[in-house]
Amino acid sequence: MDIKQLGERVLAGERRALARSITLVESQRSDHRAQASELLENLAGAKRQALRIGLSGTPGVGKSTFIESFGMMLTAQGLRVAVLAVDPSSSRSGGSILGDKTRMERLSRDRNAFIRPSPSQTHLGGVARRTREAVALCEAADFDVVLIETVGVGQSETVVAEMSDLFLLLLAPAGGDELQGVKRGIMEMADLILVNKADGDLKPAAMRTCADYSGALRLLRKRPQDPDGYPKAMMVSALQEDGLSVAWEEMQALTKWRRENGFWESGRANQARYWFDQEVRQALLAKLNTPEARATMDQLGGDVAQGGIGPAAAAQKMLERLNAI
Amino acid sequence: MDIKQLGERVLAGERRALARSITLVESQRSDHRAQASELLENLAGAKRQALRIGLSGTPGVGKSTFIESFGMMLTAQGLRVAVLAVDPSSSRSGGSILGDKTRMERLSRDRNAFIRPSPSQTHLGGVARRTREAVALCEAADFDVVLIETVGVGQSETVVAEMSDLFLLLLAPAGGDELQGVKRGIMEMADLILVNKADGDLKPAAMRTCADYSGALRLLRKRPQDPDGYPKAMMVSALQEDGLSVAWEEMQALTKWRRENGFWESGRANQARYWFDQEVRQALLAKLNTPEARATMDQLGGDVAQGGIGPAAAAQKMLERLNAI
Repeated sequence: MDIKQLGERVLAGERRALARSITLVESQRSDHRAQASELLENLAGAKRQALRIGLSGTPGVGKSTFIESFGMMLTAQGLRVAVLAVDPSSSRSGGSILGDKTRMERLSRDRNAFIRPSPSQTHLGGVARRTREAVALCEAADFDVVLIETVGVGQSETVVAEMSDLFLLLLAPAGGDELQGVKRGIMEMADLILVNKADGDLKPAAMRTCADYSGALRLLRKRPQDPDGYPKAMMVSALQEDGLSVAWEEMQALTKWRRENGFWESGRANQARYWFDQEVRQALLAKLNTPEARATMDQLGGDVAQGGIGPAAAAQKMLERLNAI
Repeated sequence: MDIKQLGERVLAGERRALARSITLVESQRSDHRAQASELLENLAGAKRQALRIGLSGTPGVGKSTFIESFGMMLTAQGLRVAVLAVDPSSSRSGGSILGDKTRMERLSRDRNAFIRPSPSQTHLGGVARRTREAVALCEAADFDVVLIETVGVGQSETVVAEMSDLFLLLLAPAGGDELQGVKRGIMEMADLILVNKADGDLKPAAMRTCADYSGALRLLRKRPQDPDGYPKAMMVSALQEDGLSVAWEEMQALTKWRRENGFWESGRANQARYWFDQEVRQALLAKLNTPEARATMDQLGGDVAQGGIGPAAAAQKMLERLNAI
């Protein structure tokens, strides 16, 4: 594969070259990893930046409908929109998000949109790196907006928030006595909370939910990267395409403020540092993933479970054996 | 120090020997670590087991009052009670929990009770190991119940739950429209939820809160280690010493069921395996804590933040340099 030529085609915005490049960064073959590295280094020079929007929400809140309506609105304004997903559960469930393009039928046919399903890897670290690199490829291919979608599973929101300029939390209207199930940590990551399905019978419940979350957001400590009044909660109806342009105006206003006050740049620098740190840790822990290391862990773990040796003493033995492998 | 003799004194239940042994396991000096290892290996043979009760609750829910009243009730029944704490914030805040024995004045004077403040270490991994080893020392010293207290900070509840046979979550009564702030993961760890301050003006609110949590617990997936009806939520008043004996009966009934059905033993075996795994990971990541490694991380991290090199490529360089150090 001619990596230099592939890079030029990505920079020219060719969709097939972009798709092929993402396949390359998804590969775990070591020759592919080397090529992916080279490609990314080549493209980094272009210094193109899209607005990266992270989007989280549990199944049933209407994420697909939102992405389709919101994405169509943006492409109608002449913007180019890429959609990626972080879904560590996809290989188990057979693809719980983005596995099926019929989910976003109109958007997937739009030539200003690019939709890429989640890769089938269970290891969150692997999914994170692949998505981060796919985001960089979409930026190089001159997309204006990159939407990164996730379901509220484990650490996947942190992964998405750490690669996004804006983080949206999508919620469904809830009854007053219902346990909302929003993790506090997620609330603290959100730049905008969008209460979806604010239409028809659910509109009163959506208004209450929105008011509840507006109140809750006011209780959180103010973050330096937020101007007054942010983060905020708003209502949208993805189905009726209602409230989407107001939400987009909010996103643009917040982005503009952050750019003018240095938080866009510092945010991206901190994120790069964060990912460097994560990559180093994962590489160190990868020493435990060889067949020999696993076998030794199993054997020592069995001894520990039976009380034959304490965890700390067994860990010391494990380290000695790792050095010998 | 004569480690063999120290061990014999711990086995005889001598408080001063126990205190000295805990100081030893808290030390980070390598000769002390070796002695601590020897001591723990010597004591493991006694195979004594206490009931380990983890207790979590945010500041203000009345944890100290609960531990004092509950502890005094147990010692009055002739049981020996040790109290430990996992508080990774203690060195910053100057000891947010257990820093001050006047907090549990009566219990600290009780000769069947042993209270040990949290050590001043910020690193959660270090606190976890120290507490785990202190628990083992208390068991060897023939305590019947070991209470392990934590505040709801970051991962500290997971640390405590992973070294406890029973995990209690203490809550204060809350207004209907108040955001409870209980992380979902914590709810899923709890064996019993105790709504404290069910006295005076707060009693109606406590009843509502208890009913809310009873409902919420029923929505959670049943865990294999729970008989029907568990986990459950109950009301107590630590101040009026109300509901404490009922709570204790629940704990004993749950423990008895788990013992008879093999979950006590399998739970402890799984915990030992978990700590072995954690110890190995920490030992691997400790390679990043040397001055040279930190300096290299800082330098490469700076390059990454400025966009001079990508996170993955920089991580690869870091690993190469680590191998050379």
